[in-house]
Amino acid sequence: MIVGAGFGGLAAARALTKDTSQIRVTLIDKRNHHTFQPLLYQVATAGLDAGDVCYPTRRFARGNDALTSLQGEVTGIDFDAQTISLADNSTVDYDSLILAMGGVTADFGVPGVTDHAFGLKSAAEADALRSHVISQFETEANRRGRGAEADHAPTTIVVVGGGPTGVEMAGGYAELTSRVLLPDYPELDPAIVRVILVEGRDALLAGFAPKLQANAVRTLEKMGVEVMLNTQVAEVGASSVTFADGSSVDTATVVWAAGIRAHPLAEQLGLDVDRAGRVAIDDQLRLPGKPNVYAIGDLAAIPYEDGLAPQVAPVAIQGGEHVAERIIESMSGIDTAAPPFAYFDKGSMATIGRNAAVVELPNGWTISGFPGWVVWLGLHLIMLMGFRNRASVFVNWAWNYLTYDRGSRAVIEPTHRPELDSRG
Amino acid sequence: MIVGAGFGGLAAARALTKDTSQIRVTLIDKRNHHTFQPLLYQVATAGLDAGDVCYPTRRFARGNDALTSLQGEVTGIDFDAQTISLADNSTVDYDSLILAMGGVTADFGVPGVTDHAFGLKSAAEADALRSHVISQFETEANRRGRGAEADHAPTTIVVVGGGPTGVEMAGGYAELTSRVLLPDYPELDPAIVRVILVEGRDALLAGFAPKLQANAVRTLEKMGVEVMLNTQVAEVGASSVTFADGSSVDTATVVWAAGIRAHPLAEQLGLDVDRAGRVAIDDQLRLPGKPNVYAIGDLAAIPYEDGLAPQVAPVAIQGGEHVAERIIESMSGIDTAAPPFAYFDKGSMATIGRNAAVVELPNGWTISGFPGWVVWLGLHLIMLMGFRNRASVFVNWAWNYLTYDRGSRAVIEPTHRPELDSRG
Repeated sequence: MIVGAGFGGLAAARALTKDTSQIRVTLIDKRNHHTFQPLLYQVATAGLDAGDVCYPTRRFARGNDALTSLQGEVTGIDFDAQTISLADNSTVDYDSLILAMGGVTADFGVPGVTDHAFGLKSAAEADALRSHVISQFETEANRRGRGAEADHAPTTIVVVGGGPTGVEMAGGYAELTSRVLLPDYPELDPAIVRVILVEGRDALLAGFAPKLQANAVRTLEKMGVEVMLNTQVAEVGASSVTFADGSSVDTATVVWAAGIRAHPLAEQLGLDVDRAGRVAIDDQLRLPGKPNVYAIGDLAAIPYEDGLAPQVAPVAIQGGEHVAERIIESMSGIDTAAPPFAYFDKGSMATIGRNAAVVELPNGWTISGFPGWVVWLGLHLIMLMGFRNRASVFVNWAWNYLTYDRGSRAVIEPTHRPELDSRG
Repeated sequence: MIVGAGFGGLAAARALTKDTSQIRVTLIDKRNHHTFQPLLYQVATAGLDAGDVCYPTRRFARGNDALTSLQGEVTGIDFDAQTISLADNSTVDYDSLILAMGGVTADFGVPGVTDHAFGLKSAAEADALRSHVISQFETEANRRGRGAEADHAPTTIVVVGGGPTGVEMAGGYAELTSRVLLPDYPELDPAIVRVILVEGRDALLAGFAPKLQANAVRTLEKMGVEVMLNTQVAEVGASSVTFADGSSVDTATVVWAAGIRAHPLAEQLGLDVDRAGRVAIDDQLRLPGKPNVYAIGDLAAIPYEDGLAPQVAPVAIQGGEHVAERIIESMSGIDTAAPPFAYFDKGSMATIGRNAAVVELPNGWTISGFPGWVVWLGLHLIMLMGFRNRASVFVNWAWNYLTYDRGSRAVIEPTHRPELDSRG
């Protein structure tokens, strides 16, 4: 039984069902699809449609008799009875359990984040953010067209958090505003359109080589992004963001990319979690005292070098594969001393915009600018699951690249229909 | 001033601003995009993403100095003062006005349609319908997986209305259920999956040649659709539909493709409208007694042969072009006796499914089956505005055709964000 169809859950499911037909795996997720989170920022900046970064879990399981997919929200786990309760009041049994629920946006206790800022953990959030930004520009352009005073808030986008996601978002919005929204809305004065990237530390891309950190700041500033380092956010309001020094910026759009915490279910279950909600595990990624329960990916506090492993896809994938091996071994009766799980860092990368990305290899080599962007593009296309998504993404990217245009900027308001889904 | 960015509104805007720089046109629509309605059924049946059938109005207006796009909902028109009131309480002036708001779903007074049936007039509706159908199958598969009794309602899709849209929807759902959903949900018994097409008259595709009508029934039945002719719907409930003879079918999904009526604004304005809400116009598509106000497309009661012109895109496009010519002439001081507007029928077509469509040319020639489908496909690709949409649509279609797979079946639940849009 695997809870969560992210990178870790899918990797574990694939590894468990590849070579043996003795194991039956059920993959539970509250959504009916895997979300390719590394590209959510493209949905939020109108480069891709939401459907391009989603892959149906049922499609993944199709043709694999050992694998069953189940859409449901886990509300509780009874570790003694080995059962999982779902939100629809049903329960399912398990022999071995892999917890791979991932993370949620962390507000670090900053007031207003939950009410006014946009997170970026699901396709629905990315879609809502895109519609919000475009509606803000539309509304302000219409106001200006009628001769109203300029208002800065609707056309100011503040991205909080200078990690890879924040850098990608800021770069994406700089391109969207300068290349698409300003030409589309000639009523708007370019001077009131601002993209601001806020980071608490003195550098972007913590953990990357200083050379790449400086490259990111330089590239973003050349694209028109205002980079504010050493700046703490004190409060997020409906139409402004206030910093620790008391200054503030008028903005209707605050994107919160400042961090994640582990899925709250772990803490609710009474598991041993750290400050960021991450579950304590042994060197086989097992929960202490629960030899048939594993935690992987963003949910688990996995030691690495002097601290914990980063919350990125490769850690989840490697963890899923490691746990799958252990389960297969234990079911085959093999119980030798397995090597402890060790995260193997294949390098990190972040894209900044058209023609620019930074890539750092484990041996310390760095690639930046256009060559870095080509590496980033190729690797992401290879990683994207399913030919159809890949082809559609490629068409959109090729179009964006050749024309500076962005396709997915229709604002499609959700229609509310009668809630028949509760029948089940 | 043009109200409505449908086929008619866009055709009028293009024609008005093509050859002259003296005319300033403002195009108002309540959405920020044109919706390519002929392909909405593809979104509802998971063949395309919603973004593929939307084209931003601002993109259409970009680079055309004579054309301004404005997102806003028209709430009233003062024909004496020549002003339009919008939902945000602003007003705009006009010299000439083209009403092109199109139509809305008509329930013909059948109880329950508004509350329980799905219309298909916007990308948001099509998206909601797709998510609903997939969620129904998902929920029922999970119930069955736990050993519950089979329930017929979640896996029964009833399409009401045997016109081109109803035929396309029924064919699309027959393919989606047999080729995609049943393989994805092996827990479901194929016998409980039904697609039913209900039509009040004794033939599908009213107005087409009898040969093609029969071809449509035969093709749909071969695909597994149950075609119910001479059947009136008496009531739509949350989990059933009842017919005039008292019989009923358990279903959680009723798609209402039985007809449209003109946008209700016309009636609210006190204009002279017919039973279907369509505005009375003279032979120049002008409102009687209002020489500078025109109505085109689905909104207007346009005489054709023995009755009224059909509510299809070509009528709207031809009307928009005709009205644009009249406005240009009247502004140039030319006021000769203009020829009355006459709809020129270039033929009709409807697609039924993979490899099958029916096409009728004005001279009575008919094409059906695979050749018909090729004609249908080519014409729709040519008509789709904007290269990017066209390329993405083509990728999706090619993928569907080659694999029998359908890509866009991720259910992306809307996220509700603070309503900042009211700032404007």
